[in-house]
Amino acid sequence: MADYTLGKLAEMVGGQVSGDPALTIKGVATLSTAEGEQIGFLANPAYRKQLASTRAGAVIIRPEEQEHCSTNALLVADPYAAYARIAALFQKEPGGEQGIHPAAWVSGEAEIHESAWIGPNCSIEAGVRIEAGCHIGPGCFIGSGSLVGEGTRLAGNVSVCHGVRIGAHCILHPGVVIGSDGFGFAREQQGWLKIPQMGGVVIGDHVEIGANTTIDRGALEDTVIGNGVKLDNQIQIAHNVHIGEHTAIAGCAGISGSTRIGKRCAIAGGVGIAGHLEIADDVTITAMSLVTRSITSPGVYSSGIPAQENGIWNRQVAHLRRLERLVQRVGKLESNNRQKE
Amino acid sequence: MADYTLGKLAEMVGGQVSGDPALTIKGVATLSTAEGEQIGFLANPAYRKQLASTRAGAVIIRPEEQEHCSTNALLVADPYAAYARIAALFQKEPGGEQGIHPAAWVSGEAEIHESAWIGPNCSIEAGVRIEAGCHIGPGCFIGSGSLVGEGTRLAGNVSVCHGVRIGAHCILHPGVVIGSDGFGFAREQQGWLKIPQMGGVVIGDHVEIGANTTIDRGALEDTVIGNGVKLDNQIQIAHNVHIGEHTAIAGCAGISGSTRIGKRCAIAGGVGIAGHLEIADDVTITAMSLVTRSITSPGVYSSGIPAQENGIWNRQVAHLRRLERLVQRVGKLESNNRQKE
Amino acid sequence: MADYTLGKLAEMVGGQVSGDPALTIKGVATLSTAEGEQIGFLANPAYRKQLASTRAGAVIIRPEEQEHCSTNALLVADPYAAYARIAALFQKEPGGEQGIHPAAWVSGEAEIHESAWIGPNCSIEAGVRIEAGCHIGPGCFIGSGSLVGEGTRLAGNVSVCHGVRIGAHCILHPGVVIGSDGFGFAREQQGWLKIPQMGGVVIGDHVEIGANTTIDRGALEDTVIGNGVKLDNQIQIAHNVHIGEHTAIAGCAGISGSTRIGKRCAIAGGVGIAGHLEIADDVTITAMSLVTRSITSPGVYSSGIPAQENGIWNRQVAHLRRLERLVQRVGKLESNNRQKE
Repeated sequence: MADYTLGKLAEMVGGQVSGDPALTIKGVATLSTAEGEQIGFLANPAYRKQLASTRAGAVIIRPEEQEHCSTNALLVADPYAAYARIAALFQKEPGGEQGIHPAAWVSGEAEIHESAWIGPNCSIEAGVRIEAGCHIGPGCFIGSGSLVGEGTRLAGNVSVCHGVRIGAHCILHPGVVIGSDGFGFAREQQGWLKIPQMGGVVIGDHVEIGANTTIDRGALEDTVIGNGVKLDNQIQIAHNVHIGEHTAIAGCAGISGSTRIGKRCAIAGGVGIAGHLEIADDVTITAMSLVTRSITSPGVYSSGIPAQENGIWNRQVAHLRRLERLVQRVGKLESNNRQKE
Repeated sequence: MADYTLGKLAEMVGGQVSGDPALTIKGVATLSTAEGEQIGFLANPAYRKQLASTRAGAVIIRPEEQEHCSTNALLVADPYAAYARIAALFQKEPGGEQGIHPAAWVSGEAEIHESAWIGPNCSIEAGVRIEAGCHIGPGCFIGSGSLVGEGTRLAGNVSVCHGVRIGAHCILHPGVVIGSDGFGFAREQQGWLKIPQMGGVVIGDHVEIGANTTIDRGALEDTVIGNGVKLDNQIQIAHNVHIGEHTAIAGCAGISGSTRIGKRCAIAGGVGIAGHLEIADDVTITAMSLVTRSITSPGVYSSGIPAQENGIWNRQVAHLRRLERLVQRVGKLESNNRQKE
Repeated sequence: MADYTLGKLAEMVGGQVSGDPALTIKGVATLSTAEGEQIGFLANPAYRKQLASTRAGAVIIRPEEQEHCSTNALLVADPYAAYARIAALFQKEPGGEQGIHPAAWVSGEAEIHESAWIGPNCSIEAGVRIEAGCHIGPGCFIGSGSLVGEGTRLAGNVSVCHGVRIGAHCILHPGVVIGSDGFGFAREQQGWLKIPQMGGVVIGDHVEIGANTTIDRGALEDTVIGNGVKLDNQIQIAHNVHIGEHTAIAGCAGISGSTRIGKRCAIAGGVGIAGHLEIADDVTITAMSLVTRSITSPGVYSSGIPAQENGIWNRQVAHLRRLERLVQRVGKLESNNRQKE
């Protein structure tokens, strides 16, 4: 990590400098906290008034915001993306180790690339292959025959069961579980008979999986997560689900078995999607909605109800319960009206 | 694992062969992917048309589907259950180890059956008893005085706190937590006072618990999970809950403290059940419903709302908010009508 | 742990004895299960009838319940709080070890207080500081530069990423993840660009965090959990969230990024709160509500719908879908009425 001049940063992100290109930038910060050698950014116009008062040495803005800006500026079409690239330059993340920690256990039949890192208290079973540049943090276990692709990072205490394939340049946060058995049972007179879960999980490249998210293995075929998919924390992905490329899913959502979600979808927090459905590409589903039917067209779909003051809400629920009665009353009024006509 | 003839499989599941009983079966597959030495199955009539085109060597079907079938058939009343039994014959699951892995830590005061397996990086505290044939996968910790019954499998990174009793032939998937403190606090002027959680957790036989599901210990008495209960991933079971035998709960459901759920219930994904309730036997609750009162009769209960196109939904919510006004308008119309009569 | 006389207990909790102050008390129990040397309590008047039949040696009750009581009593204004204090005297919890377990891995650059305990299979990275009296249970990992304050307990298999500060006297239950990356991405033509998550997490004193709850690190500034906050299991706290002192949140709730929650709030199970909102102090939100706007006044807020018999519910949903049509029908009736007047 080094310092950068504003001019150099502009060159790296394809922007223009307004002000002093020789200004030294040593870090990123918010508009409200930045100091003279830091660069801030304005992506959301709601914060525009901070442009006038910021003490940042420079700001990343759209060209049309320049009139509101009192300091040096880096002008780009997409300030948030430019900020992301610049922030990455200044990020001090742990990592970079190579080799196998003496407190890890690695099967003699596992294949670990010499540039990969296996942290303390990891358990790597037979037939596992860990590719170049992987970082396997403390306490992870990787089950027999699984593959972790080049440059992928498992943060710590991640569980990867047997027969899972994870692509390159993925990030799996702590507590993630990949390849647990799907929830499959046949009902019998005396309880439930387990359906063996014999498929695997295939995860593409550049996938990020949030803390404590779970992805079950398929029953007979694989559960499939496409390239570039971004999963937030505490998401449940059931067996045989397919998620299309670049779809993003927010925290606490649950996708039931065998459902196929298209590409570039945006699924908000707490959404539940029933099993055996097809969701088209470019579908947005808003928070805490329940999807019970396939969605065949791009668009925005919802069934979440915003909270209100409890007394008001309780009356609405009471009216909802009497809605059938209200319909009947209106029908009677209409019938009366017709008789009088 | 060996190969089986179709005739042998029919004998094992109590079915009839239509076609060649000497056919060798080497595995299971879906109707659409099966090859000549694999057996497929038809449980859901929606997939019936695949019967005509499947390349499977044989199929498991109900006798009445035989007319649609172009290949060898194994005829049974319940094809899904027969498939489950046959698939289990062909399942290649890791396991079968015995003993204590050198990278595990086991207290000298723990009792581990010689046929059990304790994987690497496990921590087994004093007073723990692990019975015959158990498989404790990598990274599990089992707190002092807890019991794991015969043949039970903890997949890896499972946390069992102190004083927990797990029955025989259970499966606990990665990230499961059993016996964490229940959420109990007395409100005081200055914040909250912790109520000691001094009960345990008792889990019956043949229970399966999905990845990252959590079951809290009781406050004074035990949290109890009955025999044959099947819990999916990311379920939260609060302190003092009782779940009756053979009840199945799908992912992301939450059961609040001291609620008692009956036998053979089916609780769908994302359901929330309030505390101190009683749910009768044989109750089904559909996805994302909120249960706020006891349910005294078997049947199906719901409050989940299916998602719709967002613009339509927003108008419905707006109308719902004005429902009281609509009721008043209808009341006025009725009053006017009566005055005119 | 010792026995106590009833008189001694009364003195400790500031109550009065009715009956024999020399009675020996050896434990706590519920009214329905207590035996002669145990003390029970009545906090919820719904269980008052158990006062007459209890076999408890003594009971903790409000003075006004004394007339219903047939045994020795400890009279206090708040029986539940008094019970909490007394139960803590009798709690047999594992713990009390000091030092570093030989099966733990601790970086030479970590600072572990001599009175702290680091359990087996823990991984403690460089720059970590563990203060006096901490208990770090089996299988925890604590990332570089993080701090665990005096007397804090991590139960086991807890993941604390780098740069996290945890206060004193906290309890983190198994599977908790602190400091995982927030869910931040800039949309680009080809998928998503990761926003570096460079903030930390700051957790106050006396905070309890339930099993498998996740708290993400901030994007640029810190995610902040105030003193005395109580979080149940499987809660998701996104990046940059602030939670005010003594707020309690029940299981499976999710708080989206940058939202600020006030002090002393009570948020029920399964609640979802959207991002960038402000929730005032002393707000209660009932189960499974969705909060989409800031809440500026104390009070109770809701949008959860109680489940009903499925056939009835389906008709209500159908009527809800036709509500716009009903509004139009009522409008037409009103219009007709006006024309007739």
